[in-house]
Amino acid sequence: MTIENTAVRRTPFRYDASMAMFDRALAVIPSGVPGHLGPTEGCFVPQSAYPRFSDRAEGTRFWDLDGNCYIDYMCGYGPNVLGYRDPDVDAAVAAQAAKEDVVSLPSSIMVEFAELLVDTVASADWAFFAKNGGDTTTLAIMTARAATMRKKIVFVKGFYHGVSPWTQKLDYPGVLEEDVANNLYVPFNDLAALRKLLSENSGEIAALIAQPYMHGNFVDNELPADGYWQAVRALCDQYGVVLIVDDVRAGFRLDMAGSDHYFGFQADLICFCKALANGYNVSALCGRDSLKSTVSSLTYTGSYWMSAVPFAAGIATITKLAEIDAPARFAQLGTELTTGLVQAAADNGFHLVTSGAPALFYLRLADDDSLMLHQEWIAECVQRGVYFSSHHNHFMNAAMTRADITETVEIAHEAFAVLRSRHG
Amino acid sequence: MTIENTAVRRTPFRYDASMAMFDRALAVIPSGVPGHLGPTEGCFVPQSAYPRFSDRAEGTRFWDLDGNCYIDYMCGYGPNVLGYRDPDVDAAVAAQAAKEDVVSLPSSIMVEFAELLVDTVASADWAFFAKNGGDTTTLAIMTARAATMRKKIVFVKGFYHGVSPWTQKLDYPGVLEEDVANNLYVPFNDLAALRKLLSENSGEIAALIAQPYMHGNFVDNELPADGYWQAVRALCDQYGVVLIVDDVRAGFRLDMAGSDHYFGFQADLICFCKALANGYNVSALCGRDSLKSTVSSLTYTGSYWMSAVPFAAGIATITKLAEIDAPARFAQLGTELTTGLVQAAADNGFHLVTSGAPALFYLRLADDDSLMLHQEWIAECVQRGVYFSSHHNHFMNAAMTRADITETVEIAHEAFAVLRSRHG
Repeated sequence: MTIENTAVRRTPFRYDASMAMFDRALAVIPSGVPGHLGPTEGCFVPQSAYPRFSDRAEGTRFWDLDGNCYIDYMCGYGPNVLGYRDPDVDAAVAAQAAKEDVVSLPSSIMVEFAELLVDTVASADWAFFAKNGGDTTTLAIMTARAATMRKKIVFVKGFYHGVSPWTQKLDYPGVLEEDVANNLYVPFNDLAALRKLLSENSGEIAALIAQPYMHGNFVDNELPADGYWQAVRALCDQYGVVLIVDDVRAGFRLDMAGSDHYFGFQADLICFCKALANGYNVSALCGRDSLKSTVSSLTYTGSYWMSAVPFAAGIATITKLAEIDAPARFAQLGTELTTGLVQAAADNGFHLVTSGAPALFYLRLADDDSLMLHQEWIAECVQRGVYFSSHHNHFMNAAMTRADITETVEIAHEAFAVLRSRHG
Repeated sequence: MTIENTAVRRTPFRYDASMAMFDRALAVIPSGVPGHLGPTEGCFVPQSAYPRFSDRAEGTRFWDLDGNCYIDYMCGYGPNVLGYRDPDVDAAVAAQAAKEDVVSLPSSIMVEFAELLVDTVASADWAFFAKNGGDTTTLAIMTARAATMRKKIVFVKGFYHGVSPWTQKLDYPGVLEEDVANNLYVPFNDLAALRKLLSENSGEIAALIAQPYMHGNFVDNELPADGYWQAVRALCDQYGVVLIVDDVRAGFRLDMAGSDHYFGFQADLICFCKALANGYNVSALCGRDSLKSTVSSLTYTGSYWMSAVPFAAGIATITKLAEIDAPARFAQLGTELTTGLVQAAADNGFHLVTSGAPALFYLRLADDDSLMLHQEWIAECVQRGVYFSSHHNHFMNAAMTRADITETVEIAHEAFAVLRSRHG
């Protein structure tokens, strides 16, 4: 699609109500808005281009505290997989909430959800439920250590597995050398480095934990090389290493059977969270029978881990995602969108690079080592109603339509036109 | 209240549907029902006396999968503080859910909830929200370490602070010596031991973390000795140690201003979870201004940590608890209940010992070192519709009425009568 040189017709948004509320937030919350939804995490620049608070959301869009409306490609940083306030999920939630949620015994709906995951996910013989993605990565590590009686864990450089101290770096505040004493690191797609590490630490490595592909921040996202995962699987078998896939971000977006299945291998343990229940709070560790009794032997529990309502949401979400073949839809519409964005850039003399899976596309302007031009373009998009992140992957959701894509490309085009007129 | 020798008129419950569902659960979930709601954790004996799944809940009661109804003194192990499906909380939830829940930006209701906690909790100058109680104890430890640049943590023996490896014991599966290398332990109410420990490790201790009183399992619960907390506070100040109160279990049950306020001292950091939102999934770390910027410096976030619906539930819960002065009600009705239970025991020739705060009363039969008689009595209560735990503290909730108490004492009396007739 080629769009004629669009007149710049949209007025950039103002965030007065957001900023006033942010001042209130700073008084009572560390950082005002902490963590990945906050302005201090770094993927969210220039900060002045972004609102701070949402007020309502529906389908593909949210409205901020000043009433500005956005087509949202961050999707709550992942949980919004069917569209905000999906009517089917919310109906299942209402039905369950009318019965019970957190009680002194679990609801049998927990069993139904586990059965559904075992039927859906190729590497799942069982499911264990918690609240955070990080609850499941920590459980996976503890399981691997208990099963192998070994200590060391192999990480793939550029990883993100939550915020427990063992997942952080030694120079991060509050992290001790003991927390990361058993962490080893290899580059992604580097089998020679992995072979060397495994050989040098033979008999000492409990697990390798990795995302299914590298969807890190501030870097082009990188898919596995042909044969990479099959070789990793074989090496893990050879050295008795538990292979843990952290599918918290990509899970159910590439393949309903798991991202390991998508890339043609089988994990021993697989971590799910974000896309599991369309925003209702639940995470799951799934895995193979050989590790089930080890999980049973661990002390691992939490106050809300058997909330019935999120299980109902999870059943409705996974069922609907499978029915509509959401992964195929994400790939199709994600490709249409990124193709349109690249064309909008080219129409204005820019070179936009997309990377990663189209369902979780990452954007970068080429020939922009300082990142300033890219951030400027993102800022013009956000302030016209397309909620992109500057240096984080994006997320498609199942409510997206061609009309959303067309409007997004139109706004992106206009944002590029602003840049062209500004920089000549 | 003295009850005449009651005829044993209730037929013990059957759990056929529960047990059939438990078999299904065992096929797809490690341990079937894992963790503290499951039968393998130990506070839940004899296992045959307990159902496995709940089906619906309302007010003070839940109904299991076989249709048996229970007056519930476990309250979801804490979250049920106002009564199941409290109409005021659920109305606030419905209003928020119609707007948004998990979005790419937080709702401003997060700020309102933080403001309410700062207004309510004496030691709270700010609030940071997460999902698990354990998220907040880990954040508290990391904050103390970052603020003091020290490693060691003092624990009070018999503690429970969640399931992160650093909170566990070295002989627990999946836990490494590195995880607990900086943990020191002192007995509760033992100032001499604490003084010695602080002196021997002067300049090396980042924090002391403790529950406001010892509400452990399998032991009589123990309140602080007069002056204990004031002395601990002074020692922490003297040695530059951050004083962390884990109020996950007792919070808002003893005092709306925090259990540190109840016992007449001020924590530096205080952890809340269970009673915060009547079962909706949210936890909070609160603390003093001096530590706010340290919290801001940490990397700490999660996918669902800014869900708007649990914040709405939290505001409704804390507001209502304060309006009805729930802590006073818990103390009053808890005392009436335990007095009635002790009398029911005495009427049948048994000596029942109650300990801990009446809001979270703990039960034990005296002269029963094997615990078998106590477990037998609990079993007869559970199977007649009073949901007690064998060796865990109980929880009052604000929906409880004198009629519930009377019915509970009646059933307890009948259960003692069964024991008396069985053992002569």
